[in-house]
Parts: sequence; C-alpha cells; structure tokens
Amino acid sequence: MSSQDISAVPAPVILTGDRPTGPLHLGHFVGSLRNRVAYQHHYRQFVMLADAQALTDNMDDLGKVHRNVVEVALDYLAAGIDPAKSTILIQSQLPELAELTFYYLNLVTVARLERNPTVKEEIRLRGFERDIPAGFLTYPVSQAADITAFKASIVPVGEDQIPMLEQTNEIVRRFNRVAGQDILVECRALVPEVGRLPGIDGKAKMSKSLGNTINLGASADEIRAAVKMVYTDPLHLRVSDPGHLEGNVAFIYLDAFDTDKEGLAEMKAHYVRGGLGDSVVKKRLEGILQELLAPIRARREEFAKDKGYVMQVLKEGTAKAREVAARTADELRRGLGLSYF
Amino acid sequence: MSSQDISAVPAPVILTGDRPTGPLHLGHFVGSLRNRVAYQHHYRQFVMLADAQALTDNMDDLGKVHRNVVEVALDYLAAGIDPAKSTILIQSQLPELAELTFYYLNLVTVARLERNPTVKEEIRLRGFERDIPAGFLTYPVSQAADITAFKASIVPVGEDQIPMLEQTNEIVRRFNRVAGQDILVECRALVPEVGRLPGIDGKAKMSKSLGNTINLGASADEIRAAVKMVYTDPLHLRVSDPGHLEGNVAFIYLDAFDTDKEGLAEMKAHYVRGGLGDSVVKKRLEGILQELLAPIRARREEFAKDKGYVMQVLKEGTAKAREVAARTADELRRGLGLSYF
Repeated sequence: MSSQDISAVPAPVILTGDRPTGPLHLGHFVGSLRNRVAYQHHYRQFVMLADAQALTDNMDDLGKVHRNVVEVALDYLAAGIDPAKSTILIQSQLPELAELTFYYLNLVTVARLERNPTVKEEIRLRGFERDIPAGFLTYPVSQAADITAFKASIVPVGEDQIPMLEQTNEIVRRFNRVAGQDILVECRALVPEVGRLPGIDGKAKMSKSLGNTINLGASADEIRAAVKMVYTDPLHLRVSDPGHLEGNVAFIYLDAFDTDKEGLAEMKAHYVRGGLGDSVVKKRLEGILQELLAPIRARREEFAKDKGYVMQVLKEGTAKAREVAARTADELRRGLGLSYF
Repeated sequence: MSSQDISAVPAPVILTGDRPTGPLHLGHFVGSLRNRVAYQHHYRQFVMLADAQALTDNMDDLGKVHRNVVEVALDYLAAGIDPAKSTILIQSQLPELAELTFYYLNLVTVARLERNPTVKEEIRLRGFERDIPAGFLTYPVSQAADITAFKASIVPVGEDQIPMLEQTNEIVRRFNRVAGQDILVECRALVPEVGRLPGIDGKAKMSKSLGNTINLGASADEIRAAVKMVYTDPLHLRVSDPGHLEGNVAFIYLDAFDTDKEGLAEMKAHYVRGGLGDSVVKKRLEGILQELLAPIRARREEFAKDKGYVMQVLKEGTAKAREVAARTADELRRGLGLSYF
C-alpha cells in the first residue's frame, strides 16, 4: 500500500465536549482541553457544547447555560482548539440527536438503565431515589446518540465513564442487528494519562461550585492569589521541617505543568529532606502558571472582543455537525424501513 | 362581534392518527375514521401516521410498518379524509417530535411514568415486568410531544387513554412554568359517542391479529363471507326460538351502521319474540355493509392505482406538519434560552 493509499483512509472520528455550566479551568485544561488540541491533528474531532444536557439540571436558571456556551467557546479557542481542524457544535441545535435517542430507547430496558453504575452513583449522589427525572435515567441513551451520530470510534473519558460507553456499544450492536447491516460504529474509551487535578484546597475535584478552581481566563492577580491559597503540607510549619509530597497540591500541580522534570525532582528532594519553604515552591508554581495562562488569557481577551467571530465559528461548526448527524439519522431511518420520499 | 371577526379566530387544532401496522377496518371506521371526516370541517386537523411509534414493537418485521403507511393512507383517502382539509403526516419524518420528547423527559419522574394506568395495564398485558423497553415507559412523554408539537387542544381518544392526556397536560404546565410563558397548550379528550366495535366473532376487540375484522377495502365476497360468520345468539337455534340481543354482533353492527332506526327497532322486537331467523338479520346487515363499503372500496382502488398521488399527499402533508412542529420546537428552545443564531 503506498502512502497515498494510507492518506486516503479517513481519520478516525473522536467526540469530546463539555456541559457549558461555567467557564473552564485548569482541571479541564489538564484533563481534556490540552489533549484535544493534540487530537485535532490526528483525528476528525467534534467538540460538543452539550447545552441541552446541561439544561437538565439547570432548569431553574435558564440564562446560565446560554451564557456559558459562549464562555466555553472562548475557552476552546483560547486554549488552541482550531475551528479549521475541529468541529465545535452546539448540541441543542441538532434535533437529530434526539431522534436517535428516540429509536435507541426501544433497544434498552429500564432494568438495564437502572443497573448502569454511573447512573446509580449519580442517583445516590443527588439523593434522587424514585424521584429520578426520566431524562436522567435515559441519559446514557442520549449519550449513545451523541456518540453514534458522528460515528465516533474514540471517546476520551475518565475511568468512571466507561460503563456509559459499554451501554453505547450495546445499543450499536443491537441496532445493527435489527437493521441487518452495520450502520453504527462501536467506540472505545481513551482514558487520559493525567487524571483529575485536585482543587487548590486539596479537595479531590476542582469545581466551580467549590470555589477551588483557577479559571483559564484568570487574571495575573487571580493566579497569584490562588497560588497563595494552594494547599501544601500542614505539618511543614518551619522551613527547616521535612515536607511531605502526598496530597501536596503545589507539587501535584508542578507534576502536571512543570516541563523541567529534573529541576522539579531536585526541588522535591530538597522539600522532603527539609530546608525548603513553601513560598519557594509556590513561586516556581506561580511562574509556571502565569507563563501557561498568559497567552491563553490574551487570546481569550482578543476573541471576546470579536463575539461575531465566535458566533460564526459556532454557527458553521454546528451546521457542519448537523449535516453529519442528519446523514446518520437518514441512514438509521432507512435501516429501519422508515424512508418514503 | 361581526361574523367576519369570528371567522378570523383560528379553528382549534385536533390531532388524530393511527399506528400503521395493518389496513384499517370497520372498527376504525366507527371509532375514529368517520368522525375525522366530520372533524375536518370544524377543526384544523392533523392525522398522524405514527410509524416511529409502531416500529417500537415491530422491530422484528421492518417492512411491515413501511408497507402499512401507504395502506393506511389509502384507507384515509378512501374514507373521505380530504388532504385539502386535513394534514396527513408521517411521524418519523419530524425529528422535532423526538426533540420535544427529549426536553419533556426532564419534566417527568420515572415514578410518575410507572404510575401511568395505561402504561401499567400494557406492561401487565405484555408481561414485561422489569424488562420494559425504556421507550415503552417513556411512551406517554413521546405522545405529549406529538400532541403539543401541533398545539392540539383536542385529542379524540377512548376512555382508557385519558391518563395519557393528563400526563400531557402536566408536562404542558410544567414546561410553561419553567419557561415563564405560555408556549404550550393544554388539551382535552374528545371521547367518541360510539365505543369500540367487537370483532365478528364477538370478541371485545376487532383486531387484525385475531382475524375477526372486516377491512375497509374488503371485497364484496369478503364482506359476504364475514357476515356469514358474524356471531349472533348461540341459543337461537330455530327460527321460532326467541333471540337475544346482548352480545349479538349482528345487532351491534346494525346499531352502528343502520340509519333506519325505526325499521331496526321493529326487527329487534321480532327477533326477541321469536320467528325471525339469523339469515334475515344478516341479510339486512350485509346489504348495509355492502352499501357502506362499496364506494370506499372503489375510491381505495382508484387511489391505489395512483401511488404517485398518494405519496405526494403524504409528502406535502408531512412537510406542512414539519413546519408547524419546527416552529413549536423553535419556540421551546427560545423559551429554554437555547437560541443562538
């Protein structure tokens, strides 16, 4: 096979995205955003602003999701997601996603949905019990629609989301069997190497609602203030005391962002044996974060000045994505014998 | 108010329809079809071929629903549903119906759906238990989408379907409250005066699968043969025996179709007191059914010869209906703050 033949093979499709409920932060950057900037060179990437999904638990504040669609789009562009390489789309503008959900709902039992570990855990966390909104129980089906509409074969998710992809693949296999042809494509998880970044307070999850984030658009002052509050080692009272690295957010962040691995290893050793103050560690961290975020913030400010451009990117991406989803929905209908004209 | 002002008030919207799983029969004619022919003069009528819904329990025979969409459309036209007065549409071609379902699923709890008496009864009948397909449980939500997409305020249904409309109205109220404006319209049931017609064998339900129907397109011979098999009074062995009217399908059908009420009353009296053979009663019934169905059959044959016309009717009706549903979906999205471009 010549190299020309190889280049004719279409790139695998990858689906990524966010629920636009707030601006993105360092946790998103480490967990997904910087990976997507790399993915877009190797895959055909769809980045979905899941506004319809986000609305499901934000019915009490309708403006919030709308507002954050634009905020998150700014984060995407600022972080380097290139609309020429990635298709950024707004979920609610593709009725075909709901259409797929409709058909898939007949291929999954209620009992199966209730057994989904991710759904079970969320039901427990939110204290839903029997008052689960139907849309919450059927969420994995809706996610299967999102993934299959674009025929994504790769979906970057955390370990905890793997059962959702298993559910998707069950639906894919069942649908293809019913239709008697391979219309839908199975997907596999791409679990990022770097896991979840803790909050600056040391809590497991960086989350806007916990107020322990550093946003991508944070100002230099905000970064400085946040780094000052970063949780380190509560037993490291004097500079001369030996310090601990476990649970030490300053070092966890340095592990995630410091490219000078050798210098970092030396600093860790010094900290552990004693004689290195937190202020020195934090200074290094602050420098790195300022350097990382300054160009992102600058680009974000530029894009924010040209909202027309941002809306144009969203409009074009959404139109392009809708074409793809409409083609899949059409194949689905044909596969089910529901094609007439 | 002058008569001109009155005529400017738009006619109320009525939604009717069928699951296209087989050609329509006398039961449909009595229970719905002949009413629709009347409704179309007073209401803005949408007649939905619910193919997507019909597919949910016909996944094993994909061609069946597709084939019957055309058969039922022929029945509609033959029975006198006028495409200039009624909008005939194919459900699967309106992704907006699934889109509405998606949003409504967040306004209903799983527990509420499980309490729905119609769903409960169907779960019992089909022996589903916990293996209910999710689409079956969420069917009332999908029906709410169908009704509200056209802003139907009147829905002709049997008594047993009234809980479905209550569910629809709950969703309407909840949605309007969330959106803070009256976007959706509540509906009311229109229960037909004449109830369900029994099968020719006396079984409660006339149903293709029981083989106890007389189809609208039945030939003269088929009608004759069917009337011969009509269940009468098993105790009425000799002509001289007194006959019984209860459960006597011949008389139940005469009640439904015989316009000579006086002649029918005399015949009943004669039958009850004895001296009137079943063959005389059946002869009267056959004459009436032949007269009723002959023009319908003739029109059906005419339309069947011009499939291009039938498809054109379906295409235009579906396009018109989709415009209406798309407008509603757009209002919904705007109401939820999911409008961007």
